[in-house]
Amino acid sequence: MKAFPSTDGTRHLLRLDRGEEVLGSLADFAVQERLPGATLSGVGAVEQTELGYFDLRRREYVRRVFADEMELLSLSGNIAWWSGEPVVHAHVLLGGADYAAVGGHLFRATIAVTGEILVAVLDTPLERALDERTGLKLLR
Amino acid sequence: MKAFPSTDGTRHLLRLDRGEEVLGSLADFAVQERLPGATLSGVGAVEQTELGYFDLRRREYVRRVFADEMELLSLSGNIAWWSGEPVVHAHVLLGGADYAAVGGHLFRATIAVTGEILVAVLDTPLERALDERTGLKLLR
Amino acid sequence: MKAFPSTDGTRHLLRLDRGEEVLGSLADFAVQERLPGATLSGVGAVEQTELGYFDLRRREYVRRVFADEMELLSLSGNIAWWSGEPVVHAHVLLGGADYAAVGGHLFRATIAVTGEILVAVLDTPLERALDERTGLKLLR
Repeated sequence: MKAFPSTDGTRHLLRLDRGEEVLGSLADFAVQERLPGATLSGVGAVEQTELGYFDLRRREYVRRVFADEMELLSLSGNIAWWSGEPVVHAHVLLGGADYAAVGGHLFRATIAVTGEILVAVLDTPLERALDERTGLKLLR
Repeated sequence: MKAFPSTDGTRHLLRLDRGEEVLGSLADFAVQERLPGATLSGVGAVEQTELGYFDLRRREYVRRVFADEMELLSLSGNIAWWSGEPVVHAHVLLGGADYAAVGGHLFRATIAVTGEILVAVLDTPLERALDERTGLKLLR
Repeated sequence: MKAFPSTDGTRHLLRLDRGEEVLGSLADFAVQERLPGATLSGVGAVEQTELGYFDLRRREYVRRVFADEMELLSLSGNIAWWSGEPVVHAHVLLGGADYAAVGGHLFRATIAVTGEILVAVLDTPLERALDERTGLKLLR
């Protein structure tokens, strides 16, 4: 991973490299830079991507792995904190050789070629708290 | 809804809550904060979502309601003004239990679990004007 | 094309007009404004859109043209430089009358109705270099 920061340090374009896991790399960056919070947007190409769809009735994510290399058409989300740990919340859209788009909540993805992800710092401490109704950690 | 603003007030991460309508909440926020203009990006989960596809020949939107809860995979757009009222222009992508993505121009959506939407203020007054050819309100 | 810049010049919302080619317009803007680098996000409606899927094994893009007018549901990416020329790297998602989303690496697209694209300046010089393994120009 390499970071290309703006001179005022409020925005970092990250280049993630082949083999790096996306969420872990972003969490590591948040810890290293002590980001109070951030928003995310990016593109690239990924593989071994695990997506989730939240089933509100069952209060759990249904998950599926997309093993193939796919274009990362859009990554959107944010970084906040829970119990002293960074939580990277990202939704992604992926495209394959047939151009049909699939997407979901991102559980993990490995960079296949390159990842170009903008981390825009929010200097307000962003924290999550457990929501009893859904079992999810929501911004508080 | 709760806003998490940057200290300089140029960026607001909004948490929208279950039952809140997305476009109305963003319009209310624009009025309340007197935003000259803004760009939008966000994720979450929504239901009762009405999407449109603009048919340029007929000069009108074809609309469809997606009633089910779906992941809000991407919301992009902006807030400008027309006749003293805020106009929220947003395009969204949604994903369901089969991960296939659908999307269109957003007419309305209700937050199903949570919405996390970045409002990045543009301090230039953004206004729209009616375009005679298409019947749409375009940035001017 | 018309630009709506923030007063500090760090963010430009561009309105692209019917008939304008997206990548060329963004490259022209980068040259004209001498942008060191930038990130991109936008929406609109496009036609004659050529998308690519990178086949890592063959080290080349498989391409397809989507001639019809489609909603531009999401455009994400960045502008960097290579050999003194701007390189606009953008991934897009498109939606048609059936709302199913398709997407890929953007090779070209013509604005069908309007394009509303945020160019967020990164004041660090962003450059690309040829990656021998993939044959792609990656951020360096």
